[in-house]
Amino acid sequence: MTTEQIVLASRPKGLPVSDDFRMMQVELPVIKPGEILLKGLYYSVDPYMRGRMNDAKSYAPPFEIDKPIYGGVIGKVMESLSEHFRPGDMVVGNFPWQKDFIATEKEARKIDTSLAPPSYYLGVLGMTGLTAYFGLIHIGKPKAGETVVVSGAAGAVGIVVGQIAKIQGCYVVGIAGSDEKVKLLKSEFGFDEAINYKTTPDMNKAIAAACPKGVDIYFDNVGGEISDAVIKNINFHARIPLCGQISLYNTTETPMGPRLQPMLLTRSVLMQGFIVGDFKDRFPEGIKHLAQWVKEGKLKGTETIEHGFQNLPKALLGLFKGDNTGKMIVEA
Amino acid sequence: MTTEQIVLASRPKGLPVSDDFRMMQVELPVIKPGEILLKGLYYSVDPYMRGRMNDAKSYAPPFEIDKPIYGGVIGKVMESLSEHFRPGDMVVGNFPWQKDFIATEKEARKIDTSLAPPSYYLGVLGMTGLTAYFGLIHIGKPKAGETVVVSGAAGAVGIVVGQIAKIQGCYVVGIAGSDEKVKLLKSEFGFDEAINYKTTPDMNKAIAAACPKGVDIYFDNVGGEISDAVIKNINFHARIPLCGQISLYNTTETPMGPRLQPMLLTRSVLMQGFIVGDFKDRFPEGIKHLAQWVKEGKLKGTETIEHGFQNLPKALLGLFKGDNTGKMIVEA
Repeated sequence: MTTEQIVLASRPKGLPVSDDFRMMQVELPVIKPGEILLKGLYYSVDPYMRGRMNDAKSYAPPFEIDKPIYGGVIGKVMESLSEHFRPGDMVVGNFPWQKDFIATEKEARKIDTSLAPPSYYLGVLGMTGLTAYFGLIHIGKPKAGETVVVSGAAGAVGIVVGQIAKIQGCYVVGIAGSDEKVKLLKSEFGFDEAINYKTTPDMNKAIAAACPKGVDIYFDNVGGEISDAVIKNINFHARIPLCGQISLYNTTETPMGPRLQPMLLTRSVLMQGFIVGDFKDRFPEGIKHLAQWVKEGKLKGTETIEHGFQNLPKALLGLFKGDNTGKMIVEA
Repeated sequence: MTTEQIVLASRPKGLPVSDDFRMMQVELPVIKPGEILLKGLYYSVDPYMRGRMNDAKSYAPPFEIDKPIYGGVIGKVMESLSEHFRPGDMVVGNFPWQKDFIATEKEARKIDTSLAPPSYYLGVLGMTGLTAYFGLIHIGKPKAGETVVVSGAAGAVGIVVGQIAKIQGCYVVGIAGSDEKVKLLKSEFGFDEAINYKTTPDMNKAIAAACPKGVDIYFDNVGGEISDAVIKNINFHARIPLCGQISLYNTTETPMGPRLQPMLLTRSVLMQGFIVGDFKDRFPEGIKHLAQWVKEGKLKGTETIEHGFQNLPKALLGLFKGDNTGKMIVEA
């Protein structure tokens, strides 16, 4: 059987371009015992993938040149030589950007489509939901009445962070990049305040005004000057889960900024870089809470869906322009 | 009774000068029930005092103009109207830079001079010892075999950090500012390696060479470019207790440097600002361990002693030139 895949053609300098990707035809072998043949339905694109396009030491190994990009994918079982899966089952896993592919039974996890639509398992009930959950709950340790600021608030992680913070009884301020997103955060997702950083001349003042009691938790998805402004308003004993630095992912030189340590020191602030994998042993706890909140209607997903497998690179590049609200997904 | 005190005359811009202090004569009232009259014997000077000379929000309130500087002082009880103290008792407390002064019984804590010389209670067995203990043990969480780097290693806190890290079975690298200090750290205090940052052209390479397995804990007393170099060599899941930033205390503009968050993020690093007061509830635990180690000969103090009460400002300024090895103390 012949299928198509998208490979990394070259390592980008700065912002990736479409020529950094290439579509290829590949031949699939027949499946062996314990394997399943899957058809990809929904493909996750995520900011962290930019880091894997570099040849640099990080938490995830670099993508290889001429090898397919990997990420979260929802697939449908087409053939099975595993007793755990039947044709028609829907599964999620870390799979290649490939229209059809073979997985071992250990690589795929069945999803419950009666609880939520399949695409939720790439977002709210998937990696980005778990990232929000563990970063906020286990690093941020929110207490009712505290002020939580989230940057990249309309992104896949940020929008879940804000909702969980509200469930915890916090006062929640989101930072996003359009008036439309700001409006949505407040009207649909329960944020108390939201700031459009693109139209706000003085972010320091805007944060101070939106957070009269200062900032107890800053969930950072973006880095750069937005974070500088939030940290100027940080409270004693605040917590800063470092989840993303999307504003810096495409820089080619070492980004410079004000030194943070004096502020972190004098205010006894914790800053903790993390990836969701750091909490692997606790995934069942996170999934249980997220699913419960979705069931109760307290936690909602939202998605930006691009159509067409061939548009995966375009969708990935769109993340850096803020094209998405909530989880960016490509439907094949 | 008339005595002398040293007050803050003006708030320094940048490096303090002797004119920022003034010696004054004051009249002491007679002591009231529950109070004791003390003669100051040893006065602690500490880098954090520089911060209190500014009029800025920090963990400790600013010193007031025309009011005495306060800090750790060992005093001898001269008169007592408290049943807890007798003349001749030696005590420690947070007291004014004043030759004779009155304290309430709650402000003074008796010290055991049979365990260690009185001055130890300002250093190894005092605030700087506790700072080293809590920062390293409770934030750094050292495991045997890990690599610990300490900046300001020959300072009052750093020299204790290195010794405790050795007691925990770690490989310990100190950074200090003279060949003499470097030699002392290795020969007297058990450091495995030490680096003189003033004569090392490429600190990044020097740290990499001294830490072949990377850096698991960076106990930061100095900040600035030294810290940039250490953090370039930081390991996944490393911990950075932020204890001091002495290289930046006298800057008048916001210091700039490479942004740290991308590194902390991609390597899941924890950075935690702290002051010893954050661990107030656990002081007995810290004092117990420090005293035990001193008793067993595993933990040694070292001091630079200036003589003469009037030399307190000079001793404080000396900290920023690296005049001290270990705890800087003024003997009245």
